[in-house]
Amino acid sequence: MADARRYCTLPSPFPMKRGGALHGARVAYETWGTLNAARDNAILVLTGLSPSAHMMSGAEDPSPGWWEGMAGPGKAIDTDRWFVICVNSLGSDKGSTCPASTNPATGEAYRLDFPELSLEDVANAAHVVVRELGIARLACLVGCSMGGMAALAYMLLHPDTVRAHVSVDTAPQAQPFAIAIRSLQREAIRLDPQWANGGYDIHGDGERYPDMGMSIARKLGVITYRSAMEWNGRFARIRLDAEQREEQPFGFEFQVESYLEGHARRFVRSFDPNSYLYLSRASDWFDIAEYGGGSVMEGLKRIRIERALVIGVSTDILFPLEQQEQIAAGLEAAGANVDFVALDSPQGHDAFLVDIENYSRAIGGFLAKL
Amino acid sequence: MADARRYCTLPSPFPMKRGGALHGARVAYETWGTLNAARDNAILVLTGLSPSAHMMSGAEDPSPGWWEGMAGPGKAIDTDRWFVICVNSLGSDKGSTCPASTNPATGEAYRLDFPELSLEDVANAAHVVVRELGIARLACLVGCSMGGMAALAYMLLHPDTVRAHVSVDTAPQAQPFAIAIRSLQREAIRLDPQWANGGYDIHGDGERYPDMGMSIARKLGVITYRSAMEWNGRFARIRLDAEQREEQPFGFEFQVESYLEGHARRFVRSFDPNSYLYLSRASDWFDIAEYGGGSVMEGLKRIRIERALVIGVSTDILFPLEQQEQIAAGLEAAGANVDFVALDSPQGHDAFLVDIENYSRAIGGFLAKL
Repeated sequence: MADARRYCTLPSPFPMKRGGALHGARVAYETWGTLNAARDNAILVLTGLSPSAHMMSGAEDPSPGWWEGMAGPGKAIDTDRWFVICVNSLGSDKGSTCPASTNPATGEAYRLDFPELSLEDVANAAHVVVRELGIARLACLVGCSMGGMAALAYMLLHPDTVRAHVSVDTAPQAQPFAIAIRSLQREAIRLDPQWANGGYDIHGDGERYPDMGMSIARKLGVITYRSAMEWNGRFARIRLDAEQREEQPFGFEFQVESYLEGHARRFVRSFDPNSYLYLSRASDWFDIAEYGGGSVMEGLKRIRIERALVIGVSTDILFPLEQQEQIAAGLEAAGANVDFVALDSPQGHDAFLVDIENYSRAIGGFLAKL
Repeated sequence: MADARRYCTLPSPFPMKRGGALHGARVAYETWGTLNAARDNAILVLTGLSPSAHMMSGAEDPSPGWWEGMAGPGKAIDTDRWFVICVNSLGSDKGSTCPASTNPATGEAYRLDFPELSLEDVANAAHVVVRELGIARLACLVGCSMGGMAALAYMLLHPDTVRAHVSVDTAPQAQPFAIAIRSLQREAIRLDPQWANGGYDIHGDGERYPDMGMSIARKLGVITYRSAMEWNGRFARIRLDAEQREEQPFGFEFQVESYLEGHARRFVRSFDPNSYLYLSRASDWFDIAEYGGGSVMEGLKRIRIERALVIGVSTDILFPLEQQEQIAAGLEAAGANVDFVALDSPQGHDAFLVDIENYSRAIGGFLAKL
């Protein structure tokens, strides 16, 4: 399969917010559609913690992307009109420089020598891509989940480079419930003897690998990405057939357990554990109040954009609707024209990936007004 | 310290719902107050997954109990009026026969040879205690959390032995979200190499012990027992002081992480892991619909009592308020006079242990009417 992935080399050294710098670093990205002559039809999409830059299919890579239903010709994020860029987060292992990359100073993988990563660094790296593409100002910056926090950082750190913003299922700062969940996910990995203080087999094809920790982390992720309401309708108390059950003591018996196991198996060796730890901690650290003298509202008020759409869902336990309300109120106080959409989709935090119909209507309608 | 714990020997063999039987089994219990001559002032309390029978202090054991604020002379569950019995669940390691007990057939600990445990077995064992105390009919049966499910089983399996019922933060069946959480807790223990298929050092004082799995299980428990709302006010984004932080990579940094760690440390070697697994799975299995031809409502309608108080809290994500509404509706349809109290306590599922003021008012008010 052809690869649509491009790479953008970051300035070297690339200074990191919390200290240190990367040398010879790069980020992976993909684009769709055509940048117009005025260079004013660009949309940048910042992703959640684990997706790659392959947001949708295209001529070069026809495989479905992680937001396939949302974006493409004639879809809500319409590539017939917009030049769409999706960047793989700095620190993620889907082509960007990350803890599994080679440290040029040693010739070995960084592992835990990777400098501390913040979402501000993720934002700064994405901004380099946009600048290198010759775009002075984005028509719209879209951020989902962790990418929504990175998008807030982007707009604060690079004023006047964004006209409109779409904020999807995200937060202006990490709250203690989300920190607790992510801390426990990290702990499951850290306590796995096979993590070996970051020294596991980095290629993911050997025996020394924190499968247990990554599996528990992923399952806990999926539990908090979805909602109890959805599962009542979807799984109820349906049992697995006898031949699907595990033979071991306390093995899986309910469909919901098998569903989680399937998610974990697809994830475990496909995402670098150290990169996961770095991005997870970066999410905990993010706090827009740092830019507002300790106030979330004052931090948001420093963002200068023309319009915004803020979407959240009532069943999200990880990024609760009140946090989207805060973002909407803050951007409005900052002078933006804000549309706020509170959905009742049953799928929880992941609704933006599943309830394409409602999210498409909101995002497509907003982009059509630009 | 004097021990107020008593033991009740179960009939031998004691048949278990899912097959097999226990021989020479017993359950631990404590009592407070005085049984009157008519023997009609007894209240039985069935506990959540981990508490012992030491529900409150008393002359023999003055240490505070797990529901100290709720019960005692002049309190909501007033031991000046009521004869209160609290039973340690069959399968729990706080004095009752459990997987850590000696199997008389082998002279060794049962471990995973303990028969499959259900909440019906927990209810049946508690009923033996009541009968042995010479009580034909309880004035009130109180069940909290897992004990609330066991209480429903008790009333179904032993008709006409209960006049009134107090249902606290519980459910008529396990829903998939709760199953998913408990399954993941069990998996964290099962995947811990030190669990050793149940073969760890059963006395909890050796090296071979699933500390990691129990710690993760407990933290996940605490996360789901409390609420995001409470933590926003209580922890916000407060950091640990530098000297409180761990020196290891990705070590704790936020107060909420240290809070969870404290809970885990207090729990890890104080509850037998195999017993935890058995009781956790028993909770998943419980489904009152089994008694109603597949219908929760029909199952509840088979319960014959005079009055009931059903309490739940809007911030409970493990036993959501809708499930208490189901219980209230079902008991009402069964002909009971039902009081339903929906609280807004911020503490989540654990509110019954923390928001003593509101729970006392509801429970004390209800008992005063009996």
